[in-house]
Amino acid sequence: MDASTFDAVDLIRTKRDGGVLTDDQIDWLIRSYTDGGVAAEQMAAMAMAIYFNGLGPDELHRWTHAMIGTGTRMDFSSLSRPTADKHSTGGVGDKITLPLAPLVAACGVAVPQLSGRGLGHTGGTLDKLEAIPGWRAGLSNDEMLAQLEDVGAVVCAAGSGLAPADKLLYALRDVTGTVESIPLIASSIMSKKIAEGTGSLVLDVKVGSGAFMKTADRAGELARTMVGLGTAAGVRTVALLTDMQTPLGRTAGNGLEVAESVEVLAGGGPADVVELTLALAQEMVAAAGVEADPAEALASGRAMDVWRRMIAAQGGDPDATLPRARHVDQIRADRDGVLTELDAYAVGVAAWRLGAGRARKEDPVQAAAGVEWHRRPGDQVRSGEVLLSLHTDTEERIPRAKEVLAGAWQIGDAAPAVRPVVLDRIDHGDG
Amino acid sequence: MDASTFDAVDLIRTKRDGGVLTDDQIDWLIRSYTDGGVAAEQMAAMAMAIYFNGLGPDELHRWTHAMIGTGTRMDFSSLSRPTADKHSTGGVGDKITLPLAPLVAACGVAVPQLSGRGLGHTGGTLDKLEAIPGWRAGLSNDEMLAQLEDVGAVVCAAGSGLAPADKLLYALRDVTGTVESIPLIASSIMSKKIAEGTGSLVLDVKVGSGAFMKTADRAGELARTMVGLGTAAGVRTVALLTDMQTPLGRTAGNGLEVAESVEVLAGGGPADVVELTLALAQEMVAAAGVEADPAEALASGRAMDVWRRMIAAQGGDPDATLPRARHVDQIRADRDGVLTELDAYAVGVAAWRLGAGRARKEDPVQAAAGVEWHRRPGDQVRSGEVLLSLHTDTEERIPRAKEVLAGAWQIGDAAPAVRPVVLDRIDHGDG
Repeated sequence: MDASTFDAVDLIRTKRDGGVLTDDQIDWLIRSYTDGGVAAEQMAAMAMAIYFNGLGPDELHRWTHAMIGTGTRMDFSSLSRPTADKHSTGGVGDKITLPLAPLVAACGVAVPQLSGRGLGHTGGTLDKLEAIPGWRAGLSNDEMLAQLEDVGAVVCAAGSGLAPADKLLYALRDVTGTVESIPLIASSIMSKKIAEGTGSLVLDVKVGSGAFMKTADRAGELARTMVGLGTAAGVRTVALLTDMQTPLGRTAGNGLEVAESVEVLAGGGPADVVELTLALAQEMVAAAGVEADPAEALASGRAMDVWRRMIAAQGGDPDATLPRARHVDQIRADRDGVLTELDAYAVGVAAWRLGAGRARKEDPVQAAAGVEWHRRPGDQVRSGEVLLSLHTDTEERIPRAKEVLAGAWQIGDAAPAVRPVVLDRIDHGDG
Repeated sequence: MDASTFDAVDLIRTKRDGGVLTDDQIDWLIRSYTDGGVAAEQMAAMAMAIYFNGLGPDELHRWTHAMIGTGTRMDFSSLSRPTADKHSTGGVGDKITLPLAPLVAACGVAVPQLSGRGLGHTGGTLDKLEAIPGWRAGLSNDEMLAQLEDVGAVVCAAGSGLAPADKLLYALRDVTGTVESIPLIASSIMSKKIAEGTGSLVLDVKVGSGAFMKTADRAGELARTMVGLGTAAGVRTVALLTDMQTPLGRTAGNGLEVAESVEVLAGGGPADVVELTLALAQEMVAAAGVEADPAEALASGRAMDVWRRMIAAQGGDPDATLPRARHVDQIRADRDGVLTELDAYAVGVAAWRLGAGRARKEDPVQAAAGVEWHRRPGDQVRSGEVLLSLHTDTEERIPRAKEVLAGAWQIGDAAPAVRPVVLDRIDHGDG
């Protein structure tokens, strides 16, 4: 059949009425949308129809590969080491990539971590590393391959050539209320990760108030969908479901999270960050088929060595003093007791309002802005002691950050149930 | 609340998740869409969310009035006679406006019939009248009022000032697979009819293969929705549900339908066209509060007098010979028996393919093209006699018209059940 004979309205109606799109129809739709032959308003209607009626496994597979087909694919086969990548669906205080990439590289696996910037209440890995004086996110393909061979780890901006259809579609979904669709999220993430050419992939699927997926059921469905797509494309893919009801570690903010990551690499740091970093590192090392002990690589200081070389290779000074905020305000406990709750979403919004994140893609971020929490759920607190510190270069941002934090924490009499960091593990046997 | 603080994405998500939009939100959305502040892709996503989740009665009422509020309203209060308008949801061979407008005017009611052009398989009243040499659809507001006072009936193009939001939204729905939504259809029709300022309105809601509404349930829901909107706006509104499984009369095509309408006004014509014309005329006359007998006005020739004056007032020659097609092809019965079926949708598509309709708004139509059926369901047929004549100025259009007609008729041994023309009547007591 001549693909040029499809009509976008027929395809939208098919999906709207619960029907199944053919391979040729999906290929045509994604290609024509990228070329401009299918209008943004038609793709918006299609995305909303998919929000309601979903995509079947065959449709989703084809959709993902059609998006990959609009761009270039990377190739790491020239490297002397196997590759493993990690993707997090996004959370508050999620600085795990920073200690994880050098740790896994220290185990003998090459880690090509193509990352993004923050939008809304979740931070972006590139924004965090840019708090380090001199560090630059943009590398050429050759620079990236050389650094992977030499240092073993690279965190840099994804080039514009990977799955351009996804970039267009993501921007469209953002303004049309069609972000929260499992097939659209899964195909967006996996099209980029498959195009990137990694041999293995570990997914960190967040669950809770600070995550896109608010329930373990939805997160599990997303994880199984992505593991299925990765496995079918020949990428060894595993997912961990991890808690995002409480923010990770003790800080949310760019420079604040770099400092916390360096603490972890130095053998300290918050227990939950250490636990999740090791859990993901073990999965990545295993998926890459390498025998190594991440805990030993961390304790021995080899991960810290890779971190220093990784930062320096991209122009950063690993010994530089991180910027400090001009204004620091504090929120204190109003009674004695046990901290029973600290809401990840509210902390993320507060950090964003303090200047750590951006409302529009073009906005700058503040390197020093963010929220620091001195107690975590389960900790004893005394009336009057500091619970939260608010960092910003713009004093007038503080009241709106305080506003969102007002109902975000609770002090009770009894310790809350301990919430595990890793809630579940999903591999291709769980499809 | 400052209306400028709404965010289109929040509103889309509210509707997507089954929530209710507030009056202020709806006013802001419709106004901003008309101004360009809300993008087409956002309105497309909203339309699809409404397709799935509907609009409640309060939302629908506000939505309709917000669309009216983007334009001007007409005013017929200066006329010496009450006004009544008719709207058909569109069917195949539906030329009823042509005999109906002069007939109701002959009963003492002013009939301002603002009409459209055909798109797709249903014809447009203006296209039909333009088959009459000299007739023009465009009138100024003053010309229209003068003709209503003088002749009593006018069929003309709606000015661009009535509910411009509806024009934009209709064009958007047409390309985004969101036409078939009862609240969106009802608000589109009723915003124009309420803005037009008629005192009473009779709705002809078609049911069957040739109509937008394929089942009596859906048609009844649409009729009740529109009657509710009209009644709430102070317009005396009644709806008839009428059959569109079989096409109306004996012809579908522009000049062909004018000729058939003149037959009806002359006291002849197909029985179903006469029956429906009289049924709608009785409703319009009653809704306008006038005591008159349409059957007498038709039989006496007074309706024909008004027709001639109505055509002449808009530059047309009521005595002119109508254009005849350059090519006429025929489809013959393949056996003896009874015609049991003639599918309205297939006949409409065939007439369209022969040149009577247009695929795009800019396309011209052929005045003489169309389909003529010489037998109706229930008629005896003899093998070899002509069932259908295909008229066109473009011979190469004939094969594709024949293709769609191939399965459109059936000859059997027993007469089919008689299908009534008028299936149901709905007024404001049926809400």
